[in-house]
Amino acid sequence: MKLSRYKKDSPFSYCLGAFPSMELLSSRPEACLSLHIHSTFSNQEYLDKALDICSRHQIPVYRDDDRNIARLNEKENVYVVATFKKYEDSLDKEGDHLLLDKPSNMGNLGTIIRSSLGFSVKDIALISPCPDYFDPKVVRSSMGALFKVRISKFASYKEYKEGFPDHIVHAFMLDGKNILQEYSFPKGKRTLAFGNEATGLPPEYLDENSIYIRHSHDIDSLNITNAVSIGLYELKRK
Amino acid sequence: MKLSRYKKDSPFSYCLGAFPSMELLSSRPEACLSLHIHSTFSNQEYLDKALDICSRHQIPVYRDDDRNIARLNEKENVYVVATFKKYEDSLDKEGDHLLLDKPSNMGNLGTIIRSSLGFSVKDIALISPCPDYFDPKVVRSSMGALFKVRISKFASYKEYKEGFPDHIVHAFMLDGKNILQEYSFPKGKRTLAFGNEATGLPPEYLDENSIYIRHSHDIDSLNITNAVSIGLYELKRK
Repeated sequence: MKLSRYKKDSPFSYCLGAFPSMELLSSRPEACLSLHIHSTFSNQEYLDKALDICSRHQIPVYRDDDRNIARLNEKENVYVVATFKKYEDSLDKEGDHLLLDKPSNMGNLGTIIRSSLGFSVKDIALISPCPDYFDPKVVRSSMGALFKVRISKFASYKEYKEGFPDHIVHAFMLDGKNILQEYSFPKGKRTLAFGNEATGLPPEYLDENSIYIRHSHDIDSLNITNAVSIGLYELKRK
Repeated sequence: MKLSRYKKDSPFSYCLGAFPSMELLSSRPEACLSLHIHSTFSNQEYLDKALDICSRHQIPVYRDDDRNIARLNEKENVYVVATFKKYEDSLDKEGDHLLLDKPSNMGNLGTIIRSSLGFSVKDIALISPCPDYFDPKVVRSSMGALFKVRISKFASYKEYKEGFPDHIVHAFMLDGKNILQEYSFPKGKRTLAFGNEATGLPPEYLDENSIYIRHSHDIDSLNITNAVSIGLYELKRK
């Protein structure tokens, strides 16, 4: 079996690294297609757990697969690779949501997915255009958190709103009507919405529930991943 | 004047991009050595302001300097470059501090500097080894916020403590004794301390003032830049 470089239109993708591969195996074993282990990888506890899951789910394991791993490995030292079939999720209608409108950077998207899971917001709506969230770069920067959340893409904000009319959307904007530091989130179903790294959210999001994270005038705006993590932290504060 | 690629041991560095270059010009004009403008850059308001500062501080301006800019430009489109002399800062003994013990990633360091400025913590201690914070990568990812804060390097945590014995250090650690969500920072001089991306803070930091940011067990830890921004947000909440 020869693994080739990821292409956006492929029905398969892969996961680089021991930690994210274990997240895939433990959270989405049914999506996992194969596991590839480098000859120098010797964490026995990890191997026992991984091989057990693979055996139960009939996932083929390729030991000493140094050549395939070297082919996919771009930067860091990677000793475990897992391949998986892309899948589709629907968002939970009852839980809180995170919404990202036209995010552009894959590393940021992965980091945000990890923060969202960290604050137990497990449903993420993406408004197109947005990066291919199954790209190995997103998977890796999420540290495998991608496999523990539900992600769904929408053509427009309108389409999202129609699907989840009961969610109160809190749009994070520089001209938001409420200051996060003084704000109490309502109970019920909440959506935190964040815009593109460079342009923020478009004016259609601006309403009485919109939020501004107060910061000094010395900076233009907070970095998007930081703004999202602060928003999630505050949402789940209590 | 031919600009050459940055070297760590050079007494000079440079700043890529119109926005960070303006931060340099307005905050540290005395450090700025030259300003280089691409022939296609046409923001007149920017030019008026920049040329005025350069004229007042006798900073040479190189118009239509496309060749130099192309030589330094690695990724994105850059139309303005400023060079500057490295300088040394001492931290303010009265204000709050941010301390980073052995940070390793330049992009993260720049992002953290920007967040710190965003929450008005303008004094940053770095414990060696740490990246060269004058590297153009750090300057760029800080969006020029670097020029608006004071940064100082220390050989060890002990050296920092000896220099600032009155600061109460709040070390952010996974086994921290206080939960940030339930914590009230004392008044007075506070230091928020964060460790290396991979290893966190060493045990010498663990004391009754240490802090844990409560997050779900689904993730190992929060991304360092997100953890820092949440800590700063909470410190300056009121």
